Amino acid sequence: MRLAILQATSPAGNPEAACQTVEAALRAAGAAGAAALVTPEVFLPGYNQPAIPDRALPPDSPHLARLARAAAETGCALVLGYAERDGTRIYNAATCFGGDGRRLANYRKVQLYGPREKALYTPGEGFCTFPIGDETAAILICYDIEFAPHVKALADRGVTVILTPTANMRPFTHVVRHTVPTMAANHGVAIAYANYCGIEGDLTYVGGSLVAGPHGEILAQAGETPALLIADLPERDPARLSTQSADLRAIR
Amino acid sequence: MRLAILQATSPAGNPEAACQTVEAALRAAGAAGAAALVTPEVFLPGYNQPAIPDRALPPDSPHLARLARAAAETGCALVLGYAERDGTRIYNAATCFGGDGRRLANYRKVQLYGPREKALYTPGEGFCTFPIGDETAAILICYDIEFAPHVKALADRGVTVILTPTANMRPFTHVVRHTVPTMAANHGVAIAYANYCGIEGDLTYVGGSLVAGPHGEILAQAGETPALLIADLPERDPARLSTQSADLRAIR
Repeated sequence: MRLAILQATSPAGNPEAACQTVEAALRAAGAAGAAALVTPEVFLPGYNQPAIPDRALPPDSPHLARLARAAAETGCALVLGYAERDGTRIYNAATCFGGDGRRLANYRKVQLYGPREKALYTPGEGFCTFPIGDETAAILICYDIEFAPHVKALADRGVTVILTPTANMRPFTHVVRHTVPTMAANHGVAIAYANYCGIEGDLTYVGGSLVAGPHGEILAQAGETPALLIADLPERDPARLSTQSADLRAIR
Repeated sequence: MRLAILQATSPAGNPEAACQTVEAALRAAGAAGAAALVTPEVFLPGYNQPAIPDRALPPDSPHLARLARAAAETGCALVLGYAERDGTRIYNAATCFGGDGRRLANYRKVQLYGPREKALYTPGEGFCTFPIGDETAAILICYDIEFAPHVKALADRGVTVILTPTANMRPFTHVVRHTVPTMAANHGVAIAYANYCGIEGDLTYVGGSLVAGPHGEILAQAGETPALLIADLPERDPARLSTQSADLRAIR
């Protein structure tokens, strides 16, 4: 299966700019034969924007409807990071619109990172899995993917690819260099990790968006500037797939 | 604290050659001011040697006594991977002799790898921690370190450095490139990972021995040929140390 990753600067609170960036990336990804495109975390309205509660999107947001249409028009599924309003609660969420525009999943980040996120968002309480092409997909968001128990839980449910909007900033370059391929290799799943680049407020993002294969191989990786990555997931080689889940011994 | 890592070809079942290699490395490491030297896995008699049960070392082995003396003479602690005989049982073990020659720890590999190891060795059942310089050390062996729950268990016990004899072979290069620095970063521990290089029987080792710091930084890394790495562990920066252990949320 072919995947696309959007690495971009923050739309800086401008939803029209965000939608145009995503639409252009969907057109290119669809033309390239990608089954799905992944955006960075909270791409609407932008990860490090002030006044997020007021800018969070309700389920009937016209911006979400517009991007669902773009997915349907291009035939390319979209995993969009966004701030979600559900009544009085705000979530750091990502939704997946299938290549027919229907909503396949809405995931809420479980592992909120740092005091700002913990003050702003309610944590999610569960995982969801859904089909993309011939793969079984799930979403994790940013810090979520650094926790082996969550990646293991998804692998144990039969997930073969994890789609991960992120906002990874300096000094945490080890995440794009090492953590993502390690989680892929150790649990036998592909991971598509879509990061920001550039500066947003007091954050400098590290870029380095990547697609890691299920044997820990780096299939494509961006630098520190905007990029659209298109990569094919390899055949899964049973002889090389991790057997950690079966091998783990409990030690008191 | 300064650490030394021995990357070497297998002594191929020759205990005299193994002891001479370790003694020479201890002299160099001690002269360089290293507090401890780590060897590859089952360096006595060699990881992929036939007839391991007959060559496993009992607690009163003269080879072990000789290497304890070498540690005392050089003032450099030694973490030695070896095949251990305890009555009728054989363990994939590593022992630590302090810089005074006294035995500080004897660890038995918990996560045996593949059918050959599982047929040959009895798995260990526990961890041990011990002081080296001003650090709190523990031993894991090869495949052990790829399991986040074990690394987390040690970090939760206050371990600051994990000393890891290994025999990592093709095609598993992701372990030296990615897994070791990830485990270090995600659990806030330094890891000294000492591998073989070259060919032994049907195995080609990947080398790539390394010292990873507690923020995921690679402090020293070998290529694919014999090497002695000497590296200083950095000051631990509380602002950058992982908070995963406290942050992990249980998801059903």
